Amino acid sequence: MTNIQKSGRTIHVHRNQRHAFWDHSVEPIDTIQSGEIVEFDLFDSAGGQFGPTSTVEDVAKLDFALVDHVNGPIYVEGAEPGDTLEVEIVDLQPATWGWTAVIPGFGLLADEFTEPALKIWQLEDGADGWAEFAPGIRIPLAPFCGEIGLAPAAPGPHSTIPPYRHGGNMDTKHLTKGAHLYLPIEVQGALYSMGDGHAAQGDGEVCGTAIEAPMHATVRLTVRKDIQVQEPQFLTSGPLTVRTNTAPYYGTDGIGPDPAEATRNAVRHMIDHLVRTYGLSRNDAYMLCSVVVDLKLCEVVDMPNWLVAALLPLSIFS
Amino acid sequence: MTNIQKSGRTIHVHRNQRHAFWDHSVEPIDTIQSGEIVEFDLFDSAGGQFGPTSTVEDVAKLDFALVDHVNGPIYVEGAEPGDTLEVEIVDLQPATWGWTAVIPGFGLLADEFTEPALKIWQLEDGADGWAEFAPGIRIPLAPFCGEIGLAPAAPGPHSTIPPYRHGGNMDTKHLTKGAHLYLPIEVQGALYSMGDGHAAQGDGEVCGTAIEAPMHATVRLTVRKDIQVQEPQFLTSGPLTVRTNTAPYYGTDGIGPDPAEATRNAVRHMIDHLVRTYGLSRNDAYMLCSVVVDLKLCEVVDMPNWLVAALLPLSIFS
Repeated sequence: MTNIQKSGRTIHVHRNQRHAFWDHSVEPIDTIQSGEIVEFDLFDSAGGQFGPTSTVEDVAKLDFALVDHVNGPIYVEGAEPGDTLEVEIVDLQPATWGWTAVIPGFGLLADEFTEPALKIWQLEDGADGWAEFAPGIRIPLAPFCGEIGLAPAAPGPHSTIPPYRHGGNMDTKHLTKGAHLYLPIEVQGALYSMGDGHAAQGDGEVCGTAIEAPMHATVRLTVRKDIQVQEPQFLTSGPLTVRTNTAPYYGTDGIGPDPAEATRNAVRHMIDHLVRTYGLSRNDAYMLCSVVVDLKLCEVVDMPNWLVAALLPLSIFS
Repeated sequence: MTNIQKSGRTIHVHRNQRHAFWDHSVEPIDTIQSGEIVEFDLFDSAGGQFGPTSTVEDVAKLDFALVDHVNGPIYVEGAEPGDTLEVEIVDLQPATWGWTAVIPGFGLLADEFTEPALKIWQLEDGADGWAEFAPGIRIPLAPFCGEIGLAPAAPGPHSTIPPYRHGGNMDTKHLTKGAHLYLPIEVQGALYSMGDGHAAQGDGEVCGTAIEAPMHATVRLTVRKDIQVQEPQFLTSGPLTVRTNTAPYYGTDGIGPDPAEATRNAVRHMIDHLVRTYGLSRNDAYMLCSVVVDLKLCEVVDMPNWLVAALLPLSIFS
C-alpha cells in the first residue's frame, strides 16, 4: 500500500455521509487535493433495510426513498468544468453477506415478474471469494460499485437511479479493483460520490439487482486537464470477466428491429433455458441472469434487425 | 477426424452453388441424412468482386445484387417444422487474404462516414493466425461465418442482409470452430445455407464489414426433435474471445434513453479515442472498431437511460 501513502492523506467517509440525489447544491463533506485517496464505508443499495436474516416479506416493506443513496460528495481542489476526473479503483472489499431481489415494478421484465423474491447470499473468502446460489451453482465474486458519479451542472435534484454523462448508476461490472474510470467534470470541485456495492453482476443487471452488498471502497481521485471525455470512459485492470470466462458459454438470441425488445427476448429465452435445463424456478432463473449472465450486441448494422445475445457462463456449474 | 467419418458421407458444396435470398422455393442442391457432414467452399461476402489487389476505387463499383449470397440450400431428411437444427461448426479455414470496407450508405454511422475506404489484409498462418492492420496493430484471427440460416416458412424472397428467427446474417463472432448452433426449423427439410466468411470481427460489425474472407467451412447438421427454440441459441466451444481477452480493455460509454443511439455514441467515442491516441484516420478507426471492438449492454434497467460500452482489447497493440 506504499503507493497510497505517498500521495498524502487518506480521507474516510462514513456510511451515513450520503445523499439521495445528484445535486450540485449538496454541501461537500470534505475537500481533497488531486491525487489523494478516499475510503468509503458503504451501505448496500437498500441503505441497510436488508440484513443476513431478511426474508421475502421484507421486499414488500422496502422504502424506495432510502434506495441508491450515494456517499459523498467530495470536493476535489482544482477541478473545473470541462476537466476530467480520473477515478482509480484502489480496493473493494464486500461484506460477508449480500442480497438479490425481484422487486415488483422494477427490472427489465417487470411486467412478467410481479411476485417478489429475495435471495440472501453468504459471501465467502472476501473479494476473491464465492457465493453459492444453490448446490452445484457457484458465482465467483468480482466486486465493483454500481454508482460512481459527479454532480451535474444542471440545477436541482436528479434521481440516482439512471446513469448520466457525469456517471451515476452505470452498473458497469468491469470497474473492478485496479480499473481507472474517466468522468466529465461539470461543476467546480467535481463533487464525487459513490455507492451501490455489488459483489458480482451480469451485464445489464436484468432483474434490477446484483449481489447487493455493503462495501468498503477505496479510490484515488485525480483531476486530469489533459483529457476530455463526453461520457464516461474506462481502462480495465486486465482481461474481462476472468473468473467466469473459463469454460464454454450458452447463448440465447433476441432478434428484431427494437434493440430493447431484442434484449428482453434474449433474457426471456435464457430464463426459459435455465428453468428447463437446471430446474430453477422462474424467479430464481431471473435472479441468476441478473448476477452472472452477460449481454452482447452481436449485430447492429444489418437492418431492420438487431441481434442481442444473453451469455451464460457454464463455469458456474459444477 | 474419426468423429466425422463415422457419420457417413461428406457432401461438398461448390462456391457457385448459392442463392441471393432466403426463400423456401429455392431448390435444394443436395439431400443429407441427419448427422452428416457438409463442406462449403465459400466466396467472400462480395461474391468475388474484391481480390488481393483491389483498391478503394473498386468499392464504388460494388454490385450489391451480388453481396451476401448464401450457399445451399441443403435438405436434411426428417426435419419438420417445429424441430431444431443443430449445426456443429466442425472446421473453418479462411483464405490467405481478406478485406474490410467502409461502404457509403451502409453501417452504424453511415451518415457520418460518406467516403469509401478499403483495407486489404494478408491473413497469416491460417485459422489460428494473425492479420496486421498497421505496424504495431495485429488482429488475432477467430474465423466464423456471418450467415448461417434456414429457409423461412413465410413465402417469397427475404433479403439475406438482416438476421431472422431462422438465422441468417447473425454476425455472431462466438460461432467459431467447435461451437454448436441451434436454429428453429420452419419448413420440411430445414433447407440450410451459409456464407459470409469472417476471419475476425468485433461485436456488432459496426462499419458494416468484418475481415471478409473466402472460407472453407465444414458443418455437421443434425435434426433435434428433443429441443425447441424460438430464436437461435448456441453453445460456444470454450471461453469467449480467448485470443483478444489477454490484456486490459479501454471502454467508451454511450448513455441515453435510446439503446440504438447509445450504441452509436459509444462507437463515436471509441473512434475519437483511436484517432487521438493512435493517430489513425477516422475511416481506419471505424474499420478497426468493426474488426475488433466489442459491444456490451452494461446497464438496461435504470430507466430512462441505457448504457452501452464499446470495448477495445489493448492486446492488439504491441
